[in-house]
Amino acid sequence: MKKIAVCLSGCGFLDGAEIHESVLTLLAIDQAGAKAVCCAPDVAQAGVVNHATQKPESTQRNVLVESARIARGEIKNLKDIRASEVDALVFPGGFGAAKNLCTFASEGANCSVNSEVERLAGEMLAAKKPIGAICIAPAMLARIVGRKDLHPKMTIGTDRATAAAMNQMGAMHCDCAVTEMVVDEQHKIVTTPAYMTGKGPAEVFEGIRKLVAEVIRLA
Amino acid sequence: MKKIAVCLSGCGFLDGAEIHESVLTLLAIDQAGAKAVCCAPDVAQAGVVNHATQKPESTQRNVLVESARIARGEIKNLKDIRASEVDALVFPGGFGAAKNLCTFASEGANCSVNSEVERLAGEMLAAKKPIGAICIAPAMLARIVGRKDLHPKMTIGTDRATAAAMNQMGAMHCDCAVTEMVVDEQHKIVTTPAYMTGKGPAEVFEGIRKLVAEVIRLA
Repeated sequence: MKKIAVCLSGCGFLDGAEIHESVLTLLAIDQAGAKAVCCAPDVAQAGVVNHATQKPESTQRNVLVESARIARGEIKNLKDIRASEVDALVFPGGFGAAKNLCTFASEGANCSVNSEVERLAGEMLAAKKPIGAICIAPAMLARIVGRKDLHPKMTIGTDRATAAAMNQMGAMHCDCAVTEMVVDEQHKIVTTPAYMTGKGPAEVFEGIRKLVAEVIRLA
Repeated sequence: MKKIAVCLSGCGFLDGAEIHESVLTLLAIDQAGAKAVCCAPDVAQAGVVNHATQKPESTQRNVLVESARIARGEIKNLKDIRASEVDALVFPGGFGAAKNLCTFASEGANCSVNSEVERLAGEMLAAKKPIGAICIAPAMLARIVGRKDLHPKMTIGTDRATAAAMNQMGAMHCDCAVTEMVVDEQHKIVTTPAYMTGKGPAEVFEGIRKLVAEVIRLA
């Protein structure tokens, strides 16, 4: 049974992992007969947003603790995961990927990436193990691969500003529909737009299901 | 397009709505070509549980605000929903259903039910519109129907203590596998065990998909 690390970034699309994308990733992995290993960095969230009003709150939450809600308590500290223990790595999206796993939301193409995220992604690339990235997470991955002078094909859908920033960081952005995904066979990187362009869970699941199948094929 | 109210109870299985069950309900509704209308009561959570340690926290959270995370911000206050506006009503599970929507977790068969939950469920029953209840939510529904001297067939899986409490409240409990559901045609009540017995999202989705299809057929 193939083991797929799923790196979460909180719980809620405005300040953490996009919940639908995360659950639909876990569903696709389970339906494919593989095993998900949820993980997240043990760091404070960049912020907390009230999802009913969309306004920032003054409270503090922890990325690992909130991610555990999506993982039903079965979550590992990202620092304890090695590429040698898993067959693939998937990053669901949500602003958490752009605020908690890296600083893309505030710093764009000059963003920094959480050191443990960069470490594990680097190990996967070195081991030629596949990485899947969903929604806005490919922007974070573009920063990681660009620093290694790798230039994979990737997508976040059709948003011109984000695509330009990804190309600036080193990726080769391709437009893609929500129900499809983009595969870079050479670098074993698979990406899908999900809620960057998606309107609801059914079409988002179609893209994520294809991404997970492709990640498992490459593993 | 049929409109299905989905009543959430927070965001996280230990103190709110079970996230997988909630998202998989939204997926099944979208795949079936119906429209989900997420709602939740605007009340304080009974408590907050750290999902990484499973220990209670001293902070406060609001059921409507946390539910909005699952609904991606598109959520209505339960008090603003009338049975006349929707074709069906579904309650995902999680301890939120037994702690925030009613007090079954602490008071068992003598539990009280949130007044807006009881009001909307009562309107649905009176209008002969279907109600779906997932995981532990059938226990709450048993309290509501029992007080009206209705005795529908319902399931929470195979847990003997919960089944006995439901029968005490007025339901007729039937054992059921996670991938199946129980339909009471007369009262238009559909129930499935989900994570009361389920091991992962794939089998939980199978039961929920069947429940949603049946709820839509009865609507």
